[in-house]
Amino acid sequence: MKVAFQGESGAYSEQAVFNYFGTVDTKPCESFDAVFDSVVGDACDFGLIPIENSLAGSIHQNYDLLLRHDLHIVGEHLLRVQHCLIAWPGVKKEDIKKAISHPQALGQCAAYLRGLGIKAESVYDTAGSVKMLKESGARDTAAIASRRAAEIYGMQILEEGIEDNSENYTRFLAITKKAGEPEGEAKTSIVFTLRNQPGALFKALSVFALRDIDLTKIESRPLQGKPWEYLFYIDFIGATGEETARKALDHLGEYALMLRVLGSYPRYK
Amino acid sequence: MKVAFQGESGAYSEQAVFNYFGTVDTKPCESFDAVFDSVVGDACDFGLIPIENSLAGSIHQNYDLLLRHDLHIVGEHLLRVQHCLIAWPGVKKEDIKKAISHPQALGQCAAYLRGLGIKAESVYDTAGSVKMLKESGARDTAAIASRRAAEIYGMQILEEGIEDNSENYTRFLAITKKAGEPEGEAKTSIVFTLRNQPGALFKALSVFALRDIDLTKIESRPLQGKPWEYLFYIDFIGATGEETARKALDHLGEYALMLRVLGSYPRYK
Repeated sequence: MKVAFQGESGAYSEQAVFNYFGTVDTKPCESFDAVFDSVVGDACDFGLIPIENSLAGSIHQNYDLLLRHDLHIVGEHLLRVQHCLIAWPGVKKEDIKKAISHPQALGQCAAYLRGLGIKAESVYDTAGSVKMLKESGARDTAAIASRRAAEIYGMQILEEGIEDNSENYTRFLAITKKAGEPEGEAKTSIVFTLRNQPGALFKALSVFALRDIDLTKIESRPLQGKPWEYLFYIDFIGATGEETARKALDHLGEYALMLRVLGSYPRYK
Repeated sequence: MKVAFQGESGAYSEQAVFNYFGTVDTKPCESFDAVFDSVVGDACDFGLIPIENSLAGSIHQNYDLLLRHDLHIVGEHLLRVQHCLIAWPGVKKEDIKKAISHPQALGQCAAYLRGLGIKAESVYDTAGSVKMLKESGARDTAAIASRRAAEIYGMQILEEGIEDNSENYTRFLAITKKAGEPEGEAKTSIVFTLRNQPGALFKALSVFALRDIDLTKIESRPLQGKPWEYLFYIDFIGATGEETARKALDHLGEYALMLRVLGSYPRYK
């Protein structure tokens, strides 16, 4: 089995792949587009994409890609993000003048870096920053990335868990060509559009509220070519194989101009 | 009167300032944070911030900054974004091998650039890319930015309106210290949190739907420190000075754990 993820070896996404799928082959991809293409073109059986971070919010590009591709969501995984301060072996913390990493990781460690008087410099990727550090040989620079990235490149971890807010989780979705039929507690992800008129979203949400179906997420994205109209993405508790969920979706179909089920999958516990 | 905006002189945001406020002094700021700080610290009377693009979606950082600062939204403006291909005077289109600009502008002209076989390279800012082109003297490189940016730096416009999708608008919000009292057709922006329970958002939207109040936007953002709980931002037609809107907000107050009015302001026509 082979699973595509975005980033270099040692990326948080690769850690999530191993946590979720166990021991599998992985394919590092340059972009989220490439992850989807790897699954569509059969180079990989699955892709694992980040969809939301508990601090930074949704990864909107992946919402747009889910709509553009005919793939199914078959699982979700939550990864606690713990950043490490990583340097060449033998380097001490007081030698560090500069930290390099992806802007989001730098932002999540901003107070920690300020406290140590370390300057931040953005690069394209977290695991990539460790690779760059290895290649440069710099002894006044640290990378911020996962424990695994440090291990892969034979670098030293000066400190682990340097994120300012420990409630830092990323939610990942497993995507593949064949829809799943989850048993036990499940979630379903859908996308739909509505007529642009007063009360439209209220009516759409009524199909869930009137059946006591719990929504776990709502997200809006611009509808291309129709300024200030939106696509809505909703996650709810339940599976399309259950009667209540099926009736709710039939009911939503009466109001929606477009409605697509992106997948039903076991809820992460 | 002095108005803060994010970007270099010639940025689309500065064009929006002149369109909305007329002839005023402007203060270019490095970051959106700096725009808010300029207004809070009285260096500027107003700030003008982009909140949403019709193709790319919301600028979430500005939603977060509206919550963190005690400023009021007093106006909105829509700017049609028209990108120009900009080069040194005398350079011909067929000389161009590379285009530099902000990643979002490059993305919005991707098909156009592909058609001409021009490579794209990301830099920090649209107007900044024209400044960089001027300083480098490169004759095989074009910048992608506004007409005004080309004029400010004395560069040549090779082609105007090169965006792939002409329905490219950015919505801006004017922010200041004192709340407005709009007359005529108005919009109101609010932010609130709800109990995390089934039907909570449905009840919240009912206060508008039951009064035939039209929502124009809903946006969710993560609630810091409470993974998978959300802040909701809503724009609706109406002003807090009108009885129906005031009753709807009182009603919402019965369900909301937190509710704040960010401002009522004249609707853009």
